[in-house]
Amino acid sequence: MKTVVNPVKSTWSELLARPTMDLESIEGLVRPVMESVQSRGDSALREFTEKFDGVSLSDLQVTTEEISQAISQVDDDLKAAISIAKKNIETFHQAQKDDFVKVETMPGVNCFRKSVGIDKVGLYIPGGTAPLFSTVLMLAVPAKIAGSRELVLCTPPDKSGNVHPAILYTAQLVGIEKIFKVGGAQAVAAMTFGTETIPQVYKIFGPGNQYVTAAKQLAMKYGVAIDMPAGPSEVAVYADESAVPAFVAADLLSQAEHGVDSQVVLVASSEEIVNEVKAEVADQLKTLPRAEFAEKALSNSIAIVLSDEDQAIDLLNEYGAEHLILSVKKPWGVANRIVNAGSVFLGNYTPESAGDYASGTNHTLPTNGYAKMYSGVSLDSFVKKITYQEITPQGLSVLGPVVETMAAAEELEAHKNAVTLRLNEINNV
Amino acid sequence: MKTVVNPVKSTWSELLARPTMDLESIEGLVRPVMESVQSRGDSALREFTEKFDGVSLSDLQVTTEEISQAISQVDDDLKAAISIAKKNIETFHQAQKDDFVKVETMPGVNCFRKSVGIDKVGLYIPGGTAPLFSTVLMLAVPAKIAGSRELVLCTPPDKSGNVHPAILYTAQLVGIEKIFKVGGAQAVAAMTFGTETIPQVYKIFGPGNQYVTAAKQLAMKYGVAIDMPAGPSEVAVYADESAVPAFVAADLLSQAEHGVDSQVVLVASSEEIVNEVKAEVADQLKTLPRAEFAEKALSNSIAIVLSDEDQAIDLLNEYGAEHLILSVKKPWGVANRIVNAGSVFLGNYTPESAGDYASGTNHTLPTNGYAKMYSGVSLDSFVKKITYQEITPQGLSVLGPVVETMAAAEELEAHKNAVTLRLNEINNV
Repeated sequence: MKTVVNPVKSTWSELLARPTMDLESIEGLVRPVMESVQSRGDSALREFTEKFDGVSLSDLQVTTEEISQAISQVDDDLKAAISIAKKNIETFHQAQKDDFVKVETMPGVNCFRKSVGIDKVGLYIPGGTAPLFSTVLMLAVPAKIAGSRELVLCTPPDKSGNVHPAILYTAQLVGIEKIFKVGGAQAVAAMTFGTETIPQVYKIFGPGNQYVTAAKQLAMKYGVAIDMPAGPSEVAVYADESAVPAFVAADLLSQAEHGVDSQVVLVASSEEIVNEVKAEVADQLKTLPRAEFAEKALSNSIAIVLSDEDQAIDLLNEYGAEHLILSVKKPWGVANRIVNAGSVFLGNYTPESAGDYASGTNHTLPTNGYAKMYSGVSLDSFVKKITYQEITPQGLSVLGPVVETMAAAEELEAHKNAVTLRLNEINNV
Repeated sequence: MKTVVNPVKSTWSELLARPTMDLESIEGLVRPVMESVQSRGDSALREFTEKFDGVSLSDLQVTTEEISQAISQVDDDLKAAISIAKKNIETFHQAQKDDFVKVETMPGVNCFRKSVGIDKVGLYIPGGTAPLFSTVLMLAVPAKIAGSRELVLCTPPDKSGNVHPAILYTAQLVGIEKIFKVGGAQAVAAMTFGTETIPQVYKIFGPGNQYVTAAKQLAMKYGVAIDMPAGPSEVAVYADESAVPAFVAADLLSQAEHGVDSQVVLVASSEEIVNEVKAEVADQLKTLPRAEFAEKALSNSIAIVLSDEDQAIDLLNEYGAEHLILSVKKPWGVANRIVNAGSVFLGNYTPESAGDYASGTNHTLPTNGYAKMYSGVSLDSFVKKITYQEITPQGLSVLGPVVETMAAAEELEAHKNAVTLRLNEINNV
């Protein structure tokens, strides 16, 4: 972890540069997978599952027996934890419900807005080393609150053709009925086009490797929406003398253990803090099972000393971190000046992992600087907001001439005429 | 306009099929334009403006003199109309402001959500036959309410190097200070990369031809967000015996005059209504200046008779119209069962053109079936929603063990450790 002391502003963008992702070359590999699934459906899915996951499946859909088995395999402790996390996530996402907007902009001109759930959504849950059942909660809970009627979950099988019981347990707990053992680009293709067994959806959510990411981008070309563009996970910690170095180190490591491409940025008000945190990092690394990932991720990471708070806030806004931890004396003073971040964690007792799992906020957040223009997943991600208007004859008498004048100026006579005809009828012309 | 009477459900998707857009081939033309602007900035912009707009410009930015001139050139009538439209749009979009969400999901576990304006936004306003000053209002008004600090507007110059005065007048009225005479893919490129004179933005909004659409899609690959994927504008009208055929015909024509690729769908409860509307269309067409566009658009359009209301609603939801006009006896009864539509117009006195210009709703809406998963432009389009959390030591004592259990089950030990260290400190271990 390189340390830079009080860098001048002109060097920031280079210091904070993220690794570029080359999805173009991967797109070339993913496109034929998409096209095969589009043309050959389930049989293509079975072929790719054999090729990429090393298992030959006759039935792609998870059966009720598999679900029952999973329920019996998950520890009661974990069940209790998942249940608390689910409740907290429900509470926070329920609070995001929009009111029905009703505004009479002029007498007789009534405008409305209502949120309506996206009917069919697809959730992708990666396989691999860590069974991300927490992501099932983060996606399915708001989908259910939004009123999405069809939830489809795809996740790759292991070499024996099974899905991790914690994923199946969580999926049935939140009421997902259609779970399929398909992973990678082929899963995204299946939800994009639909196959004999997997329903087509309108929007695809969830993390994944670079093939999944490239497939989701391609899916957009076929008219499907996606949650957000993806990049490696990242954290920025802003620490002053009130920070506890051991806690900061633990937070940096919990990000770094995700993978070798994880991004970690430490911004500190003094070099002393940086040195203390680094010593703690070295110490804690020794006991971590995923130390190898973490060490590599840290070697690409940076510690920046900025003694001036205004400058530190400017830099944090320029970076736009997915996760921003404020281990500073007055965290709200800083938080209120942050304009670019996915999710902000305030104070010494708010580790990122609280939000990753169970506090209630969503963990699907914009990475790669996308916090400048994208929100994390929320209830909004699962609804469309439809507008309505209803104008009375009296309302049109007032508003109509305005529309006529503007339509004429835009040289759209038929637009004008749609008003004129009605005004003539109202005025008995 | 072809008429189909009571088609069976299995034929609907073919009947309602939209023309496919082939953006791949256009992407090939647009990509070198993007790359030239990326590498050569303003000088590339000047070259493309000379090539595509037929005018050589030394100064790309609209000057204060040009603005003053535009103010004096716009009629007082039009100014008054624009001012009323602006007020209505402000009123409706102000009402979309989110409350600051604050939820204590467990004692001592505080979660928050706040909307923060996207700092830098780019607005593209097309040139061509119709000067779309109304789109300036529809994009800039919510951007200002959201708190976006930098608004950049690009619009192509005419052959004399000028921009239509109504566009300039409206832009200054809503407080846009940076207006550039650049159009097409080169304008999108300029806002994506930034040039010597045009600032880089985080999100690009606005309609445009197929080159602009392709450029906006490419812009996403370079990390910029866009408002939504675009397609030809469209309207569906659902009419029963309470509809006024002349009004329905005028509404269909106001959509059809947009361009030859406009989509028009009439769903009626009887064949008689369709015949009456068709007769009115033929009649009204005679006097329209843009009759040529409208006639071609109508020739690709369809009238569907569905005597059963449930079926009609199903079909309208399958189509997912950008604009949906309900010229029926009980419009709210139908509207409440519509799940896929951009904006809905209720009753005989609510023409689409009211919403296009001045009622207060936004006219930038999802086309091409995207209403199934995208909302129209609203205040939401100009903000990110940042989440926050602040946990007290007491809160972490309760939540911490839940996080530890879940992190251990996902085999992410460093995530667990970030909690364990804090719990140990709290419990003086």
